Amino acid sequence: MSGWFTKSGPMQDVVISSRVRLARNFKSLPFPTSENIKSAEESISIVKKAVDSVKNLNFKVIDLGSLPQLDQEYLVEIHMMSTDMVGKKIPTALVIKEGNENLAVMVNEEDHLRIQSLMPGLQLEDAYKQCLEFEGIAEFQPKYAFSHEIGYLTSCPTNTGTGLRASAMVHLPALEKTDKMESLIDQCRKMGVAVRGFHGENTKSLGSCYQISNQVTMGFTEHEIISGIDNLIKNIIQLEREARETLRSKFGITFDDMIFRAYGILTNARMLTSEEALRLLSELKLGIDLGMFAEYDTTDIIALMSNVQPASLQKISGKILSPGERDILRANIIREKLKSKTE
Amino acid sequence: MSGWFTKSGPMQDVVISSRVRLARNFKSLPFPTSENIKSAEESISIVKKAVDSVKNLNFKVIDLGSLPQLDQEYLVEIHMMSTDMVGKKIPTALVIKEGNENLAVMVNEEDHLRIQSLMPGLQLEDAYKQCLEFEGIAEFQPKYAFSHEIGYLTSCPTNTGTGLRASAMVHLPALEKTDKMESLIDQCRKMGVAVRGFHGENTKSLGSCYQISNQVTMGFTEHEIISGIDNLIKNIIQLEREARETLRSKFGITFDDMIFRAYGILTNARMLTSEEALRLLSELKLGIDLGMFAEYDTTDIIALMSNVQPASLQKISGKILSPGERDILRANIIREKLKSKTE
Repeated sequence: MSGWFTKSGPMQDVVISSRVRLARNFKSLPFPTSENIKSAEESISIVKKAVDSVKNLNFKVIDLGSLPQLDQEYLVEIHMMSTDMVGKKIPTALVIKEGNENLAVMVNEEDHLRIQSLMPGLQLEDAYKQCLEFEGIAEFQPKYAFSHEIGYLTSCPTNTGTGLRASAMVHLPALEKTDKMESLIDQCRKMGVAVRGFHGENTKSLGSCYQISNQVTMGFTEHEIISGIDNLIKNIIQLEREARETLRSKFGITFDDMIFRAYGILTNARMLTSEEALRLLSELKLGIDLGMFAEYDTTDIIALMSNVQPASLQKISGKILSPGERDILRANIIREKLKSKTE
Repeated sequence: MSGWFTKSGPMQDVVISSRVRLARNFKSLPFPTSENIKSAEESISIVKKAVDSVKNLNFKVIDLGSLPQLDQEYLVEIHMMSTDMVGKKIPTALVIKEGNENLAVMVNEEDHLRIQSLMPGLQLEDAYKQCLEFEGIAEFQPKYAFSHEIGYLTSCPTNTGTGLRASAMVHLPALEKTDKMESLIDQCRKMGVAVRGFHGENTKSLGSCYQISNQVTMGFTEHEIISGIDNLIKNIIQLEREARETLRSKFGITFDDMIFRAYGILTNARMLTSEEALRLLSELKLGIDLGMFAEYDTTDIIALMSNVQPASLQKISGKILSPGERDILRANIIREKLKSKTE
């Protein structure tokens, strides 16, 4: 699995990735929050049966209990599953689609099914379509917990109705540096849209990356929710692009100095913490997006931002590394990747 | 004048330069501290006459009043004269020797003559010999204020006797980083030796450079003073070299990381203050001295340390520059110089 984040996508100067997630539960079983081992096993077997019924679609069920801890952490890092899936007391599984790195279905997370599709750049509609392919498997249809009055039922009422969460990971260094983030977050909240840091809830923003997603899942159709977020993201892209131009014209050489210093440290440092690497890569990406380094494209930097996270580094080196060892490997990988493009 | 600091000298890994200064006064005139315009002019005319008597030695007297302010500041920056010479109320002059950038004689500073020789690396004996060539001009001999009991008379009693100050500018980043400077300064003080920052008295150390010089000018012969400082400097060289090896072996990749980061910023930044440039050049020099960058030698860095000072920059650009303009030019010069050696 080389990772969905190594591919380029539309408007990646601002939108790192798009994600759509559908929550579904089986009406015959207790929902995962009150599930026991037996019922959890049963929901996995429903999934396996459904997947078997559409062999031509190449879905593959992975029992997470059999997956090494490091691989599980890696899947969390690349946003293919949530951190709640690691070390859960009931059996869990992940469904992927061979030959398509975008889809990942968590079985027995907060809901029986969390069907999610991750795509580079702004591609919410396409991501939604990928989710539907799995969601629409005929075997599942009569089994979903669904009410004609309120829609799909979920463990947490905040997901009830469509069960849909549409989100985009956006790179907003200029809005951050021009102190516009607070008011943007405020405006979004008033529209029922959440703005969060790099790893979803309860994390702060690293590398000026923010996740923007709908809060309301009921009272709108799926397409209304997706096009609402899509339009909002397009507005934010506009704001961020304007802020970048302002930043560069207002600060001139001070701005260039910041970007080139980031580049100088990235191409020379022998040790980089995750936090510093993300901050510097974010600044370099900003420069690349403004046309400053013709030899790189923004997808290179997005891939590096993901590859230098702790579990990814350990997957690359094939062994458990101490934080100090990771800092050295992280610096080496960034240096070699950036230098390989200038030689 | 390309500057004495662009030449290489012995033990430049630790000793940037050696300086010997002789203070002399003319007994027929009031000493400069109580001199008036007329007597100051007279001391300059004594100097001119003496210089005329030895035309073959190529000494040249420059009336400082006729020299642009920027040139005067430049001479201060490269340690060819003291800051007290700029804007003095009485006439002053500087004697240089054509074809030899090491010698500079200040006329009417604190004493009628401050004969000084500056040489790259550790060359105190040679510097002293150069001073003697001027000091020994036959015309001067009967005119010096000299007492057979106490030696040469000077404006300030701290110079009386030999009138000799022998000093070395040493680069002690490793002793600084291993917190050994305080005890070294203490030990030196007990031996009657002063340790000062980059620009002599009343300045703090920049770029880990310290000036080490004798405090006592009486009760010893000139050769005793010079060989005393010479031996002390050789001990300090040993201490610094050991501290560098310790630093590198103790901190390993953390040490390399510091040096390479300095290099990364120096080769990429678009603005560098004088203070930051000196700090980073000092770290790069340390790396070069330990064999880390084969393409550079330590004299390149010493020359840059001098060339990027404010007056030197303005001489290079041929005009007065604001501090911000200097920061940009400083970054450009360093970047281009360092890159020119890798291409």
